[in-house]
Amino acid sequence: MKTGKIALVTRLSPEAETMWLERLSAVMPGEDIRSFVTLTPDEYVDIEIAIVANPDPAHLAQLTGLVWVQSLWAGVERLVAELGDFRPPIVRLVDPELARTMGEAALAWVLYLFRDMPIYAAQQRASQWVQHPYRRPERTTVGVLGLGELGATAAMRLREAGFNVAGWSRSLKQVQGITCRAGEDGLEETLKTSDILVCLLPLTAETRDLLDARRLALLPRGAKLVNFARGPIINTPALLAALDTGALGHAVLDVFAVEPLPAASPEWSHSAVTVLPHISAATDPDTASLIVARNIEAYRADGSLPTAVNLHRGY
Amino acid sequence: MKTGKIALVTRLSPEAETMWLERLSAVMPGEDIRSFVTLTPDEYVDIEIAIVANPDPAHLAQLTGLVWVQSLWAGVERLVAELGDFRPPIVRLVDPELARTMGEAALAWVLYLFRDMPIYAAQQRASQWVQHPYRRPERTTVGVLGLGELGATAAMRLREAGFNVAGWSRSLKQVQGITCRAGEDGLEETLKTSDILVCLLPLTAETRDLLDARRLALLPRGAKLVNFARGPIINTPALLAALDTGALGHAVLDVFAVEPLPAASPEWSHSAVTVLPHISAATDPDTASLIVARNIEAYRADGSLPTAVNLHRGY
Repeated sequence: MKTGKIALVTRLSPEAETMWLERLSAVMPGEDIRSFVTLTPDEYVDIEIAIVANPDPAHLAQLTGLVWVQSLWAGVERLVAELGDFRPPIVRLVDPELARTMGEAALAWVLYLFRDMPIYAAQQRASQWVQHPYRRPERTTVGVLGLGELGATAAMRLREAGFNVAGWSRSLKQVQGITCRAGEDGLEETLKTSDILVCLLPLTAETRDLLDARRLALLPRGAKLVNFARGPIINTPALLAALDTGALGHAVLDVFAVEPLPAASPEWSHSAVTVLPHISAATDPDTASLIVARNIEAYRADGSLPTAVNLHRGY
Repeated sequence: MKTGKIALVTRLSPEAETMWLERLSAVMPGEDIRSFVTLTPDEYVDIEIAIVANPDPAHLAQLTGLVWVQSLWAGVERLVAELGDFRPPIVRLVDPELARTMGEAALAWVLYLFRDMPIYAAQQRASQWVQHPYRRPERTTVGVLGLGELGATAAMRLREAGFNVAGWSRSLKQVQGITCRAGEDGLEETLKTSDILVCLLPLTAETRDLLDARRLALLPRGAKLVNFARGPIINTPALLAALDTGALGHAVLDVFAVEPLPAASPEWSHSAVTVLPHISAATDPDTASLIVARNIEAYRADGSLPTAVNLHRGY
């Protein structure tokens, strides 16, 4: 068994890169972990494992001794796309704390929509005192697209909060207390019955542009939407058009095709859009460092890797 | 046993008064329920029970045969104050659905503050993409003032969501999983340790102006506050001053000394205040009608009344 070195390869801010280097080194005192940017070219060949967060693919390609890649993020489809033909196994971050945080975010922003917070904020700007009727959560259906670890956790959290929850996924899943569907018919039925829709799908060739004008039009009039997955899953012009006409009531968007969202983007100033800077479930450095350390420890012990990303499906 | 008539005495809108008259009549088909405004003076003496929502006390005083009063609202301190020396037993609305809705509101707006929604809304107005660090709920202490039915339900709901919860009440209570305190020392300790404070106290002589400048200054720097109880419990000038200096981070205010909040009030335009039009836990007409019907049925059967308001304590 080789015991090669580890490189941290990111395009994060220098402060964030330093923070990660400190956290990772602290939980793996026996490992030699270096920032890629501090390596000299003759050291590249010694790097066996790359720990990455939004890495420059050209940097990774220079690591000719690389055996595998550990992502600090749950989503790796951009990395997969950028790597092209260079295809080392990529282990994405599977952090139970991340799923909990995402479940909490789904609950927080569904309650934000359910309790009419955007409406009351607009009223406050106009000094308007108007009470809107309250409808109990069991009379509100929340549709959750994607029932992977994040989606299933979010669906259960919403169910516990009293909502009627329907879930949809590529292959049919079972989640206790939740109406589960799959396939195109299942998607259409889920859209038709969702007062609030939460998107937690991975971005793949099949989910790109999934919520286009035709499918968005299936949602009930005034339905609201939360995208905590990836920007390109929703067709932005179609979404903004539906919000403009009132066909849809409000959209909470945490993810965008280009991030940071460019200053000229219409989402920023749209009265029916809440823009968030990709914060629904940020990686927690405390828990993530320990998970990465455990993965590397197991690899050092017997060469085993956690399930790597399926490069064909993209997740 | 008398079987006198029932009057609905409110200062609600005509539409709301009609809605209540219909709901109450539907669940009590054997009772003769009339709107006060449709009675002739010679009918006043026949009214045995008044069902009230913000009634004109002069109207109640004219009901010389009145035996007891059923409020459609949980809070009756304004009614008690307005009635002066005329003191029929007042039964306030104790609706488990109301406590559930209030617990949900406490969770929704604590998550609003915890997940930095006011900060991200301000960033959106400035087209700013800045991610703020996430802190897990177990590292955030939510103080709940008031552990009656509403406060205890809210505290448990927040505990379930993972927050560290501390509760304070006039007399010491026990709520599972929650640090409970009472007395002035207990209040000071609760304030000193609360990252987010939720006020669910009844308004009484003791709680009026409870959160004055001195006590607000005990909160940690940048602490946030939610008032779902009654406006006069918090000293408004002291609160706004603390928000102005940044000593406090944000206040969600659903209740005010004068409601609707007058247009000239500084809360409307304060960047660190979220104004809500008293909607945290609106009475649900479906469940409330049934509870009132059950109270009246029991009274008709054997003359018993649910625990009436303690007119000295005010709740």
